[in-house]
Amino acid sequence: MIERISEYLDENKSTHLEELKQFLKIPSVSTDSTYKKDVNRTAKFVADYLKEAGFQTVSVEETKGHPLVYAEWLEAGESAPTVLFYGHYDVQPVDPVEQWKSDPFDAEVREGRIYARGSSDDKGQVFMHLAVFKAFFKTTGKLPINVKVCIEGEEEIGSANLYEILQEKKETFKADLAVISDSGMVANDQPTILYGLKGFTGLEFTVNGPDNDLHSGMYGGAIRNPAMAIAHILASMKDEKEVVQVAHFYDDVEPLSDEERKLMNEAPSEDYAITTGVKDTVSEEGFTATEHTMARPTLEINGLYSGYQGEGTKTIIPSTATAKLTCRLVPGQDPIKIQDLLVAHIEKHTPKGITVSIKREPLSAKAYRIDPNHRYIQLAAESFSETFHKNPVFVRMGGSIPVVEWLDAMYDIPVVLLGFGTPDDRLHSPNESFPLTNFYQGMQTIANYWNKLSQEK
Amino acid sequence: MIERISEYLDENKSTHLEELKQFLKIPSVSTDSTYKKDVNRTAKFVADYLKEAGFQTVSVEETKGHPLVYAEWLEAGESAPTVLFYGHYDVQPVDPVEQWKSDPFDAEVREGRIYARGSSDDKGQVFMHLAVFKAFFKTTGKLPINVKVCIEGEEEIGSANLYEILQEKKETFKADLAVISDSGMVANDQPTILYGLKGFTGLEFTVNGPDNDLHSGMYGGAIRNPAMAIAHILASMKDEKEVVQVAHFYDDVEPLSDEERKLMNEAPSEDYAITTGVKDTVSEEGFTATEHTMARPTLEINGLYSGYQGEGTKTIIPSTATAKLTCRLVPGQDPIKIQDLLVAHIEKHTPKGITVSIKREPLSAKAYRIDPNHRYIQLAAESFSETFHKNPVFVRMGGSIPVVEWLDAMYDIPVVLLGFGTPDDRLHSPNESFPLTNFYQGMQTIANYWNKLSQEK
Repeated sequence: MIERISEYLDENKSTHLEELKQFLKIPSVSTDSTYKKDVNRTAKFVADYLKEAGFQTVSVEETKGHPLVYAEWLEAGESAPTVLFYGHYDVQPVDPVEQWKSDPFDAEVREGRIYARGSSDDKGQVFMHLAVFKAFFKTTGKLPINVKVCIEGEEEIGSANLYEILQEKKETFKADLAVISDSGMVANDQPTILYGLKGFTGLEFTVNGPDNDLHSGMYGGAIRNPAMAIAHILASMKDEKEVVQVAHFYDDVEPLSDEERKLMNEAPSEDYAITTGVKDTVSEEGFTATEHTMARPTLEINGLYSGYQGEGTKTIIPSTATAKLTCRLVPGQDPIKIQDLLVAHIEKHTPKGITVSIKREPLSAKAYRIDPNHRYIQLAAESFSETFHKNPVFVRMGGSIPVVEWLDAMYDIPVVLLGFGTPDDRLHSPNESFPLTNFYQGMQTIANYWNKLSQEK
Repeated sequence: MIERISEYLDENKSTHLEELKQFLKIPSVSTDSTYKKDVNRTAKFVADYLKEAGFQTVSVEETKGHPLVYAEWLEAGESAPTVLFYGHYDVQPVDPVEQWKSDPFDAEVREGRIYARGSSDDKGQVFMHLAVFKAFFKTTGKLPINVKVCIEGEEEIGSANLYEILQEKKETFKADLAVISDSGMVANDQPTILYGLKGFTGLEFTVNGPDNDLHSGMYGGAIRNPAMAIAHILASMKDEKEVVQVAHFYDDVEPLSDEERKLMNEAPSEDYAITTGVKDTVSEEGFTATEHTMARPTLEINGLYSGYQGEGTKTIIPSTATAKLTCRLVPGQDPIKIQDLLVAHIEKHTPKGITVSIKREPLSAKAYRIDPNHRYIQLAAESFSETFHKNPVFVRMGGSIPVVEWLDAMYDIPVVLLGFGTPDDRLHSPNESFPLTNFYQGMQTIANYWNKLSQEK
């Protein structure tokens, strides 16, 4: 059976590329309400494709925000696994648009890559799955496994409505495993099994000093400077050995086993001098860059501002200073508890002469980790190595995908992260692209995976 | 003689107010080239007034920037002191203009104050001197002292051309003392002798990290965060007891004598809770707010910025972080040496993983201090108490007036700071104003002062 699917996929390469271009053409920018009609049209495109592919139960669910596309086909039999395929049809905004070399929504193929917003994140990868489902239906008249499809339109803006829907509709969405293709490989042709993601929490705090900016000559020596106060508070939160100094921050961290350390270090490490321009990496004392980015928590300042930012000099004591912080968390850490610890630390380190106001980031997520030896993971690894002719590496990612953690927490099912993106894709940036080799080869991998899963009892 | 001047001034109050309004009407905004013609017209207004008053030698000197008005009358005899009167006819910009209750250049009198840009800084105070010179000429046919008048048009933008002119034309400008009215009283009707000003130096530095902002999940744990690095560097420069931690910063500071401490503390202290909204003042350990603002050096962050400043969250490691710093200096400290110390400190505290680029502020000034017991100061104090019927307080100001330090350094003459402004004047802000009582009474003080000086041998 798998050979017929494989041939079908080969024969329909051009068709699939054209269909992907149509999918990419509709500017489904979720964060910007001026694109609302396009977002709706995109949901319809997905639903229509699923229907035409062979799914009989397909619906476009209205939500308090953007529509969610749901489809299911559950006729593979009770002994076949039920897979929940999750993806998103919404995309990031495109600015600064002047930096794009071609129209962000009129996909262009250059040097083997398809350039468009969403080509990698996530329409290219979602489409691969749509095409594979269709391939099975058209060649065999059925799917080898039971499938529930959930493709939402708000991933780039926090998936708030999906969260509620997943909580309320457990019967609808329950499955044996979830599969998501919204991540990437560690190198261009290096299949990657992503078996962990970091969690996330954050806050913003403002140091409030005088009612207005003050003349620094007249008031320097009487008034505590909010910018200096925030520098002290921030500097107290992490030392120069990259060890977070917030009390109890590491208490619940699951230690990194030697076996995992070995596994991680097999992945090719990034040449940061090339990718970022930074000559000397720095990581938590006792850990390499690979280990810290993958498996140790972080505390990062994302934004910091106070006072005068224009040309030249302005001799003021600024009225306020603000910092935005986020933490990436690892298994064991609770995001709300960590947020509480950050708040306690800031309050403890607030000196006389200023006040602090804190705004907690409402979105948060626990880390996710699945045993790399899990059967479903092992089958995914086999599917990869058989189609890419290379063994995959096993890594945990520094980034977070909240829906993964929700599925883990709410449904207690394994989530298989089968990502086909590459480091050069430029997610969230101008000139996003996706390699066609992965587009085609990845479809083969997916088909291979459904086939292997169907043979599991 | 002084009675006749006094009467003349009383009789001409309305005239002087109308003439001041005309002076204020011309928008002599030095920093904005669209006002160039108005700046020139204002210089001409001043020159015409001086000529009409009785000065025979009056010229409008072209400079590389805005014109400088020069006038002299040197017929009081060799035994009479020669006074260099310095002022400026240029004004600050007016934005945000929507916050002004009346036209910033169409002066309005409300509740005993004249509201206009420049009413206090410096046209109101300059005009007082012009009117007093005219009063002497019109009543006595002469001035009681030799006078050189230097009124420039670039004080608000750093007086760069004046600096060169003062250096090149020492014969022209040399005098026994300089008198400047471009400062204020510590309280609304509290005559103030300003016998010291702070110096000034500064720099801007940028911490450079990765070439671009990075995804904080993918790179947190490998790349040093420039915002955190700048927080550490800044926090190392001053401790939370407001003691500057830059090595050798205090080495050359002239200590504060007990006599001066006593003198300073006689001045009414500012109620910072009312004027700034800050409940708890903080000052260098061992010094009160009065002592630190007047007579101890400061290091202040004026601006600080890095990364994302918009609404909500953006999970990046910022590419750079920048801080703008200035120091107010006290007698003994050399501004270039202090700048060198700041640079050395930053370089010493630069950690691995980032680089720092430093931009020194080209303008700087030494502190200025004159012995409060100096004869010329004592005569000014007497002039004040006789006209305001209140003894003046003696204070040193936290702010800087570079021309004062240049006169001190280049000419080695006492500079008498005879300021009639008040804390409510709102210099550099919308709704700048000047109290008419000080406008009129101050003219009496000035006339009294010239008279007393003329009796010195």
